[in-house]
Amino acid sequence: MKRYEQFAEEITHLIKSGVLQTGQKLPSVRHASKVYKISPSTVFKAYYLLEDRGLIFAREKSGYFVRPLLQDTLPEPDIKDIEVVTTEVSVSDLIFSVMDVIRNNEAVLFCAFYPSTDLFPMARLQRSMNHALTDFKSRHHNYIADMTTGNVDLRRQIVLRYMLNNVNLSMDEVIITNGVMEALNLCLQAVTKPGDLVAIESPAFYAILQILERLKLKAVEIPTHPRKGIDLEALEKALQKLPIKTCCLMTNFQNPTGATISDEDKEQLYHILNKYQTPTVIDDVYHELYFDETPPKLLKSFDKHGLIMHCGSFSKSLAPGYRVGYVAAGRYAEKVNRLKLMSTLSTSVPAQAAIANYLQYGGYDRHLRKLRHVLACSQASMLSAIVKYFPKNIAVTKPKGGYFLWVELDKNIDSLQLYKIALANGICIAPGAIFSASQGFNNCIRLNYGQAWSDKLELAIQKLGNLIKSFK
Amino acid sequence: MKRYEQFAEEITHLIKSGVLQTGQKLPSVRHASKVYKISPSTVFKAYYLLEDRGLIFAREKSGYFVRPLLQDTLPEPDIKDIEVVTTEVSVSDLIFSVMDVIRNNEAVLFCAFYPSTDLFPMARLQRSMNHALTDFKSRHHNYIADMTTGNVDLRRQIVLRYMLNNVNLSMDEVIITNGVMEALNLCLQAVTKPGDLVAIESPAFYAILQILERLKLKAVEIPTHPRKGIDLEALEKALQKLPIKTCCLMTNFQNPTGATISDEDKEQLYHILNKYQTPTVIDDVYHELYFDETPPKLLKSFDKHGLIMHCGSFSKSLAPGYRVGYVAAGRYAEKVNRLKLMSTLSTSVPAQAAIANYLQYGGYDRHLRKLRHVLACSQASMLSAIVKYFPKNIAVTKPKGGYFLWVELDKNIDSLQLYKIALANGICIAPGAIFSASQGFNNCIRLNYGQAWSDKLELAIQKLGNLIKSFK
Repeated sequence: MKRYEQFAEEITHLIKSGVLQTGQKLPSVRHASKVYKISPSTVFKAYYLLEDRGLIFAREKSGYFVRPLLQDTLPEPDIKDIEVVTTEVSVSDLIFSVMDVIRNNEAVLFCAFYPSTDLFPMARLQRSMNHALTDFKSRHHNYIADMTTGNVDLRRQIVLRYMLNNVNLSMDEVIITNGVMEALNLCLQAVTKPGDLVAIESPAFYAILQILERLKLKAVEIPTHPRKGIDLEALEKALQKLPIKTCCLMTNFQNPTGATISDEDKEQLYHILNKYQTPTVIDDVYHELYFDETPPKLLKSFDKHGLIMHCGSFSKSLAPGYRVGYVAAGRYAEKVNRLKLMSTLSTSVPAQAAIANYLQYGGYDRHLRKLRHVLACSQASMLSAIVKYFPKNIAVTKPKGGYFLWVELDKNIDSLQLYKIALANGICIAPGAIFSASQGFNNCIRLNYGQAWSDKLELAIQKLGNLIKSFK
Repeated sequence: MKRYEQFAEEITHLIKSGVLQTGQKLPSVRHASKVYKISPSTVFKAYYLLEDRGLIFAREKSGYFVRPLLQDTLPEPDIKDIEVVTTEVSVSDLIFSVMDVIRNNEAVLFCAFYPSTDLFPMARLQRSMNHALTDFKSRHHNYIADMTTGNVDLRRQIVLRYMLNNVNLSMDEVIITNGVMEALNLCLQAVTKPGDLVAIESPAFYAILQILERLKLKAVEIPTHPRKGIDLEALEKALQKLPIKTCCLMTNFQNPTGATISDEDKEQLYHILNKYQTPTVIDDVYHELYFDETPPKLLKSFDKHGLIMHCGSFSKSLAPGYRVGYVAAGRYAEKVNRLKLMSTLSTSVPAQAAIANYLQYGGYDRHLRKLRHVLACSQASMLSAIVKYFPKNIAVTKPKGGYFLWVELDKNIDSLQLYKIALANGICIAPGAIFSASQGFNNCIRLNYGQAWSDKLELAIQKLGNLIKSFK
């Protein structure tokens, strides 16, 4: 056994015996080299080997960390072989009862739609807000201009970030919105009229269902694999057969499953959409929260014809509550912008300016690296806890980004019932039924791990596991 | 002639000879008493007499000011005897071309939809923003709660202000919105479906036309008197004859005319609406900008049945660009709130908290007194300038609040043409045609006087007068 293999074995032992725990940082190369009296290149080789074996993972500029050991003992949920039907959407009552709980409850919030605000640079954002408001005192004219066109600096920063993802936009194509919710509403309204058909994923983010309901649109639910994303064949068939006016999809770290469409499949997806000339709304709010070394591709990067309306937001990655979203709306930009002027006129000017200032000077990329690391560790911890405390006949996703796990329970379990019982026990989960117009997925739950892991959360997963086990 | 009459004559002379100019402050009672060697009560009597004669006017805690002398030499526009018809609304192209100018132009902005930001306490608001953001650091839970229910302190402050206007609300009835635009959109959507009929004023605020167009509603335009407001008889006839689902009206300082429905007529209006059980949306953003000693009544103060959705905003009176509006939505509150959660989810949390803090500690009433005074003086100055420089065959409103004048020009004048020519001369006006679904009022213009009067503005009115005179 070579020295680096030997060193790798030692580390493996430390991990398996629980000395090095999930999410914990390994010694730096320099440090390990000194302590173990081996050359830095030997340490490197050992770490590469451990990475290959899936025991540790690297974070850019942060070093190596222990991957969760146990997650692979649970299977992942499979795609549901659902029938593609057209459904009038009316799930609001159910969704609102869940939302009411979120806002009024002190329960452990596995059902929250945001990561914990602890994970965001609120103090640094406050400084940016202050800079921005001071700046406005000398530029009154801009103040009104920001109201109608959207803050120019903010749009420039957004265009620059798109550029890094291989998407070149003009600034006019970017419209600032009141969070991604407004972006999705405007985009869907721009290309539909009441009664029209919209292809969505199944399961889908419940807000998309709410928007369809509000705009009186009909859902065509396309089977979606919990890891690989929407079934392209089923989608193409639906586009062929039905007068679908638009698709509304999440291509990266989909909510609720965490599914990400591979780069190759994205190219094919674009090919299909282009073939049927289907304008498509992409909700991509989790794109920056990837755990791999590089971000997944944007569907928009294949879009040469302005067919894709790509929606994003700073609510999940930087500033929940500021309500600053945006859309790169391609050939529909003018229409979307007009609808925006007719519905809310403008996004809060101070919030726009604060975020523009933060993006320029606040250290957004540094913050994102930290955030991704916390989320990756919390995911690992939650997966470990689930393996430990949940019954064995479940399946769970292991998304490569975002902050949601999708858990498929025994098919006899009614997640709405579980949701109520858990709530009575101080735990809030999102029941699967709110993620589908046809109310499938009732034996599934979505769990939010968007907070630093703690004993309190570990205990809550234990309690939840016991509740599931006791469920008949 | 008694001493106080004699003193009043002296002041009258000073005014008529131009020594004391429009908007100028008269000597304080104490000062006048000392200088003119007369008793304070003599000064008081003289000022009361001058007030009665319409030469001066009082501002609470600020003293007496010179009223514009000349305004009464111009007639006010009369009500248009229009036929009540149902119109599909599509005026957006026109409105957007005007809005484009507002945001891209350095022209003198008589067409702006806001008063100048110079008139708002931007620095004090910044302090409130800072307090609010500091406060959030210790109360993370509130941060998310504010996102779904609206800031509690803000809603409390709003309910307290309603109380001062003789309207008692529960806090649940108040929904915070992204400016009044969103409030109007949500309220109209709550009580209509596409194709429904909505009674509106004629002329009406163009944003209401845009909203009807966006929601695919049809306008029933009711004749509206430029001083007294909507024709109640015509409204009742329309409600009787047509399946009108809702009314959308401005009862105080209506945009564009400045019309205010008298307290008695408001009571009768409510009686009619209640008789036909017509839910009614009131856009009341100018209510705080009254020039009389006391504010006009709220239509909502007669509403015992939750029929009135009363919409307001801080954009016109405190913080344009913060985009914080609200609606007291009566029996429709839950429906409106749900629509809000489905369309934009929440108003920017920092903006809400900043305004809540300002309302509690910032001196809002003091600010409003100053703002009203500036607006009243600017109105007087603009009216004087119009008398001086415009042709004689015009009519103009003299609203008792707000910041718009509505000018009726010779019936042969095409205001759209005038708008373009004025623009080429560095002056932006709002052409009458954008205030009606049936594109009437094309010989009218709306002028914004919402900025401290200046030589530049005086010159602009002179130039505009010359353009109108040269118009054939």
